[in-house]
Amino acid sequence: MIYFDNSATTVIEPQVLKTYTDVATKIMGNPSSLHNLGTVAERMLQASRKQIADLLSKEPAEIYFTSGGTEGDNWVIKGVAFEKKIYGNHVIVSAVEHPAVKESAEWLKMQGFAVDFAPVDKNGFVKVDALAALIRKDTIFVSIMAVNNEIGAIQPIREIAELLANQPTISFHVDAVQAIGKIPLTEFLPERVDFATFSAHKFHGPRGVGFIYIKTGKKIQPLLSGGGQENNRRSTTENVAGIAATAKALRLALTDFDRKTAKLLAMKQVLLAALATYSDVVIFSQTENFAPNIITFGMKGVRGEVLVHGFEAHDIYISTTSACSSKAGLASSTLVAMNVPPQIATSAVRISLDESNHMAEIEQFLTIFKQLHEKFQKIK
Amino acid sequence: MIYFDNSATTVIEPQVLKTYTDVATKIMGNPSSLHNLGTVAERMLQASRKQIADLLSKEPAEIYFTSGGTEGDNWVIKGVAFEKKIYGNHVIVSAVEHPAVKESAEWLKMQGFAVDFAPVDKNGFVKVDALAALIRKDTIFVSIMAVNNEIGAIQPIREIAELLANQPTISFHVDAVQAIGKIPLTEFLPERVDFATFSAHKFHGPRGVGFIYIKTGKKIQPLLSGGGQENNRRSTTENVAGIAATAKALRLALTDFDRKTAKLLAMKQVLLAALATYSDVVIFSQTENFAPNIITFGMKGVRGEVLVHGFEAHDIYISTTSACSSKAGLASSTLVAMNVPPQIATSAVRISLDESNHMAEIEQFLTIFKQLHEKFQKIK
Ligand SMILES: Cc1ncc(COP(=O)(O)O)c(C=O)c1O
Ligand SMILES: Cc1ncc(COP(=O)(O)O)c(C=O)c1O
Repeated sequence: MIYFDNSATTVIEPQVLKTYTDVATKIMGNPSSLHNLGTVAERMLQASRKQIADLLSKEPAEIYFTSGGTEGDNWVIKGVAFEKKIYGNHVIVSAVEHPAVKESAEWLKMQGFAVDFAPVDKNGFVKVDALAALIRKDTIFVSIMAVNNEIGAIQPIREIAELLANQPTISFHVDAVQAIGKIPLTEFLPERVDFATFSAHKFHGPRGVGFIYIKTGKKIQPLLSGGGQENNRRSTTENVAGIAATAKALRLALTDFDRKTAKLLAMKQVLLAALATYSDVVIFSQTENFAPNIITFGMKGVRGEVLVHGFEAHDIYISTTSACSSKAGLASSTLVAMNVPPQIATSAVRISLDESNHMAEIEQFLTIFKQLHEKFQKIK
Repeated sequence: MIYFDNSATTVIEPQVLKTYTDVATKIMGNPSSLHNLGTVAERMLQASRKQIADLLSKEPAEIYFTSGGTEGDNWVIKGVAFEKKIYGNHVIVSAVEHPAVKESAEWLKMQGFAVDFAPVDKNGFVKVDALAALIRKDTIFVSIMAVNNEIGAIQPIREIAELLANQPTISFHVDAVQAIGKIPLTEFLPERVDFATFSAHKFHGPRGVGFIYIKTGKKIQPLLSGGGQENNRRSTTENVAGIAATAKALRLALTDFDRKTAKLLAMKQVLLAALATYSDVVIFSQTENFAPNIITFGMKGVRGEVLVHGFEAHDIYISTTSACSSKAGLASSTLVAMNVPPQIATSAVRISLDESNHMAEIEQFLTIFKQLHEKFQKIK
């Protein structure tokens, strides 16, 4: 099996699963319980929080656990908008956000907020000047993803941070779900960022666990009200095993960052060079300002799902851009926002690499690609 | 160790943990992915949903996965209120709900909804006539828990269902987190119930997983917007391993229901009979209309946390009513709603049994209780 769909989800790392099972069996208390079993669980929870904070060069009190990237995005967008609605009514998100951000923004619209979608250029990068032009007196919130999940474009977070430097009343959120472990922290978590979203299953952690960064002093309403866990900001009995496993997964993901990303880039370059030799292949993910693990391309005249199933027959797993849109048969919304014509957008497939992939797998992929290409040429 | 704090959380069952690890390692796909790995994951997800639905005598399409009881309660309360606000503005919850319900209702108040808290009698039971009197033309939603987490009172859900029988426009939600596996389904899930909340870690399932029942045809807005999972009602990459483990845990929890609840009741009766012999002990959880696993009581003049720590020194774990309120040092809000005087309410402790507990542990507990009682008598 060749698994090239790591942006959809990654397999849990055996060591991470071991942490999960160890904690689940040995640390059974509810961290809120007054007795010693509670204290032990609470300590494990706080140690995990500190480990994650240290890895991000943030404070433990700035890390809040969630059930994943979607909850994180919903929480920040809805929670900040509701918190700040007395100050203003206007929210900006980019046109290429993950549905967790986009649909949260759409929901805000239904609640009477004004929402603008910042456009991207033909390569998928948010136009910072266009974003600047959207800012109004009543803008309270800007949300821009760090790495686009459909084509891997690295958004100009630092430039936007500079733009917002003299706009201290605008909260700045970064969806970093596809960025962590793939691009340097400094590129997506500059000081100006107030909120950021992370999801464990994208870096070999458990499903259903994530966390958000909330800069000290920044206000947000809870999305999950209740017993007062997570500093009264996100209630529910804490998933200590999942959280400890997430801390472990993050540590492993960030270990040897340079070597791993260099390996990803080397594999990507081989893929890109080979794909570029086909005149009917359109590549959407170049190397400059793109994540090293994502290669999205299309074979003209062949629908993405046909290619996906073609590779599947050879036990190679890729996807039609995002997992979410795939079943609905929709064209990638990122490509649509880039003004890619529909017949090309619907041909797009995404390869998303993991550092556990090998060059031999890339070669195997390219061999099969050649076969499929010949086959589809004949059919066309 | 004697663990009598099972209403706070239970330890994950080894077989359930095995399901988790098996699924996490063998079924790695994202259910939304188009390829076969996605299909296999999707199949496991739907099989788990069906298993849970069958156990509850409901339809698979009526089961929606969540990250636990708190998310379930927040989702139903906020999601139904926002969905129905064009029809009315008034919501009723009981005065003894879990904070996940109560704080969600308080949040609705901040958003302009009118919220009433239905009172309870001196034993902790919702007064159905008082609830009836609160119903207005613009009432859209009623939320009443099945089993109170602080004293184990079984609320008159069937009576309330009858009350609401001729009020079809009022949505009826039951927080069943403490009920499932402890009292018969028919007592808390009659046909009139439109929504119900469940949490896996209360029945030896994994932390951070739960589900809600949404009756066919009932409308609710998403709390987690995004990629469209769970029939477009609750987005996020599905925690298939946690969900499969939850289905397994529920099956185990409901197996041998009569034998298990009889065992719980037998242990509870021994505890109650022994505690009743102390003239300075106040018992809040009798047997009739109380869950068989919860015994809440106070030793007059001794604060609950003192008793908790007294038992802890003997490796016996009980709690000061709910885990949530314990650290804040607050009196149980249920006891406050029952008009129990503060000096007695703050003495309350909760024993919450599991069917894996033995009669020998009950005897050991009572032996230690006698010693602690003598000790505190001397101090007083
Ligand atoms: C950029 C981005 N944001 C958010 C999410 C949502 O994360 P999760 O699946 O953990 O809810 C994803 C992945 O699905 C993503 O790629
Ligand atoms: C009655 C009740 N409702 C809701 C909850 C919240 O469940 P969870 O801890 O899974 O969020 C609990 C337990 O904490 C509970 O006892």
